[in-house]
Amino acid sequence: MEKIVSLCKRRGFIYQSSEIYGGINGFWDYGPLGTELKRNVKELWWNTMIRQRDDVVGLEATIIMSPQIWKASGHVDTFSDPMIDCKTCKGRFRADQTNEIPCPQKPGKMVSECHGEKTAPRAFNLMFQTYVGPVQDESAIAYLRPETAQAIFAQFKNVLETSRQKVPFGIAQVGKAFRNEVTPRNYTFRSREFEQMELEFFIKPDEVVETISGRVAGAVDVGRADLLVDPDAQQRVPTAPQPNWGWEAWHKYWVEERIAFYEGIGLPRTTLEEYWQKPEELAHYAKACVDILFKFPFGTQELEGIAARSDFDLSQHARFSGKPMGVFDEELRAAWSKLDEARKAELSKRYYEARLKYLTKMGVEPAKAEKEAKEDAAGLAKGQYIPHVIEPSAGVDRLILALICNAYSEVTETDGKGKTETRVILKFHPRVAPIKAAVLPLLKNKPELVRKAQEVRDLLRPWMNVFYDDGGSIGRRYARQDEAGTPFCVTIDFDTLGEKPELKDTVTIRYRDDGKQERLAIGELLNWLLPKIR
Amino acid sequence: MEKIVSLCKRRGFIYQSSEIYGGINGFWDYGPLGTELKRNVKELWWNTMIRQRDDVVGLEATIIMSPQIWKASGHVDTFSDPMIDCKTCKGRFRADQTNEIPCPQKPGKMVSECHGEKTAPRAFNLMFQTYVGPVQDESAIAYLRPETAQAIFAQFKNVLETSRQKVPFGIAQVGKAFRNEVTPRNYTFRSREFEQMELEFFIKPDEVVETISGRVAGAVDVGRADLLVDPDAQQRVPTAPQPNWGWEAWHKYWVEERIAFYEGIGLPRTTLEEYWQKPEELAHYAKACVDILFKFPFGTQELEGIAARSDFDLSQHARFSGKPMGVFDEELRAAWSKLDEARKAELSKRYYEARLKYLTKMGVEPAKAEKEAKEDAAGLAKGQYIPHVIEPSAGVDRLILALICNAYSEVTETDGKGKTETRVILKFHPRVAPIKAAVLPLLKNKPELVRKAQEVRDLLRPWMNVFYDDGGSIGRRYARQDEAGTPFCVTIDFDTLGEKPELKDTVTIRYRDDGKQERLAIGELLNWLLPKIR
Repeated sequence: MEKIVSLCKRRGFIYQSSEIYGGINGFWDYGPLGTELKRNVKELWWNTMIRQRDDVVGLEATIIMSPQIWKASGHVDTFSDPMIDCKTCKGRFRADQTNEIPCPQKPGKMVSECHGEKTAPRAFNLMFQTYVGPVQDESAIAYLRPETAQAIFAQFKNVLETSRQKVPFGIAQVGKAFRNEVTPRNYTFRSREFEQMELEFFIKPDEVVETISGRVAGAVDVGRADLLVDPDAQQRVPTAPQPNWGWEAWHKYWVEERIAFYEGIGLPRTTLEEYWQKPEELAHYAKACVDILFKFPFGTQELEGIAARSDFDLSQHARFSGKPMGVFDEELRAAWSKLDEARKAELSKRYYEARLKYLTKMGVEPAKAEKEAKEDAAGLAKGQYIPHVIEPSAGVDRLILALICNAYSEVTETDGKGKTETRVILKFHPRVAPIKAAVLPLLKNKPELVRKAQEVRDLLRPWMNVFYDDGGSIGRRYARQDEAGTPFCVTIDFDTLGEKPELKDTVTIRYRDDGKQERLAIGELLNWLLPKIR
Repeated sequence: MEKIVSLCKRRGFIYQSSEIYGGINGFWDYGPLGTELKRNVKELWWNTMIRQRDDVVGLEATIIMSPQIWKASGHVDTFSDPMIDCKTCKGRFRADQTNEIPCPQKPGKMVSECHGEKTAPRAFNLMFQTYVGPVQDESAIAYLRPETAQAIFAQFKNVLETSRQKVPFGIAQVGKAFRNEVTPRNYTFRSREFEQMELEFFIKPDEVVETISGRVAGAVDVGRADLLVDPDAQQRVPTAPQPNWGWEAWHKYWVEERIAFYEGIGLPRTTLEEYWQKPEELAHYAKACVDILFKFPFGTQELEGIAARSDFDLSQHARFSGKPMGVFDEELRAAWSKLDEARKAELSKRYYEARLKYLTKMGVEPAKAEKEAKEDAAGLAKGQYIPHVIEPSAGVDRLILALICNAYSEVTETDGKGKTETRVILKFHPRVAPIKAAVLPLLKNKPELVRKAQEVRDLLRPWMNVFYDDGGSIGRRYARQDEAGTPFCVTIDFDTLGEKPELKDTVTIRYRDDGKQERLAIGELLNWLLPKIR
């Protein structure tokens, strides 16, 4: 891991934030190469999750929102770590880490062993707090969002009404989130400011699917074989979503989609693990949650969680805002009217029970909960329901770190004089590589070579990120590009200029991963490169 | 303006943040169409400013940084509005707006006229403040960045050392910034959370250029005629930067580049104004500043400022961090050694005086300032200097608003029955349009039409954002796309299927701006569309 951290600094992938001022714990900046890598990953996610689909749209909400949102989501009350204060040394420590943290005054002892007088554990909220407006009082308190998801729920109705989407459909967002972690660690893996890529995919409750389609297809019916990646085409062969899919099928679908995404940007399936949370690990509102883990050098850790969150979030915002979050579905209304009474009773009962369970858990008093759940179930006949949601939630920064860890490799070479050198190759998938092609004139001081190389650069540049480099020996320039993870080097030499007439207007393509070279006509270059980097 | 605000909500360009909770003043969300529009603009900026150039690299720094950065930049001390408190009503008001703000208790009177007992004006800092880490004390105070620029200065040395760039070169960043405006206004124009696109372009001080090139080319020498946009090619014909450019030439160059950018994304020159700040309006460290203004419905207001900021920022961070911010330039060292003594003395003196002026203004005591300035000037002989900077700083949100205002147009049509209808067309440049092409099967209930239309959708989708719509009459679908600003509609009809054999596999292209239609072979579609949207 140390080598990776050192490479990241040395090549401008990642710097410590505010480094010249001694840094700020838990904050990291991306340098030129890191920024391009991150942009590529976010762009590929956006393209895959939104632009290539008919059923997902984007949202870009603010980081500071009404504090009511975090009351509804539960973050104000429960998004906290237990902390103890030491009255002797004035330190504050995570209650569950007192055995690991040395006492600031007597570092030979752990906090749990020292003689300082400590308070009982108290909840320390992880949201960063600020004040909006000129007066700093209770009413002006606001938070930096600890996740991007809640804005999607808060704007669900606006998006539904303005985007010509119908359930099932999704709303996706990419953006910064903030958590005042007590102990940021593992480099950029757990930092206080980070970026998320979240999709909330809204689906019909199973009772609604059953009403409309007669039966609900579960996860087993999705047909996993169809969801494999075609290794030749390097492309997903997706099962098209079906109207009879229930939440299990949708959940499974998104797990497969997301794994295929990671494979498609160069994380082999063998570096990933799929962890299905056990019933006792699930949040109380979740029906299932799958973590996609990556084998980091510091341990196997989560890249993404894909949760089936029921109708919890929309229900909470409906209760806290007083604004209805249900949708109307003509198909449901029509199908319901054709059900026989026994089916109506059975489906109503199931829907009622689910709603009652939610309301009861939220502390709504029994009589009120029963009344509300009854009203909710009666809504089915009118074509009304509250959508459920599947949430694939990924962390950008940890994905960047996974890509760098996975790409990192070393090669040891011995030169003609017997001198041995170990150097780094970052074997990024060309799709995410910060630089797609380096354009290199063999010599800097031959104007014809330089002119031709600049022509090639200008030919490629509108279509991809290219790097022009004329400094140093060609071998050193190749090595520099290997370290930057550039998959292809394009060299312009005297043959390009026609020294060997049969090679006129051809260039050398040099592959990063094995150093092999081949000759290609400039006229074919763009069409040769484009499919490789897209 | 009201019509524009209403359209933005209705079509999902812009929503009020946290609307279901009554909103939060000064915060705005982007809906599906607004998000795509904003992404396109940011992507075009990134492409133009970084990827299409050899001399600019990107950075992505954190929003929360060391508070020292804001001490060095001056924001902690001076980024404030004067506020008065009313002891009677407990309100807080901007001291310069008491004539415009009604008294909360007696709204018939303005704050300046009411009888409330008021405090003297006090500075109210516009930075949002928070605490990092578990303990909320002085040492934990941090700020949300009020601009993206400072991170670039703080990371200047890291980028210089890891990116193979040499002065002149630039570092660019796109990202959120926050200002706790007392009076957010003009829709999204002045909001509390906003996004910036900033470039810091580092150049040699004029004394260094003069040493190396013999003379300094000023603004007049840039050759404005070369900087015009070619209206046919819709592309910039830039003057290539020259080694002998001084700060005035570089400043002028960036002003022209930035105006060309706005023209290139569809803001006609006639909608823009160029305002050269008067000497008395300039910040004390600025040598010049040009505002690029757009004629908004609520007034002509700033989109971007392009400032020549001297070496102020790097100098401040050098003093506050104790880390040197100078660069070494072998060319300078070599050139200096060839100067005659008189030239050396003259250039040294000019550099010394500029440094002394800066240090004196910053309150460094005279003896120390003289000593430091002398050392700085002595650095020239060793090839050392502190770069100056040109800063084109643009606001994303106000640009989005400008693009929407500029695109907004209405058309009134009378149908066959004499019924008149006024509808909206958003005439976005295809480059920024959220949707590039809508794909429309003439009828929804003809499987062959639908299948063919989906083929066309899948043909275009990897290359651009397309929208598939089969709902409602074709006229209504066209109208919906006009309102969304989609430049091209592609209609699949019975001729496409071969009803007229000579039209088999052709589609109708319908233009947004004039409703004209033409016929095009599906095989030609992609190559026809791509140059129009790029």
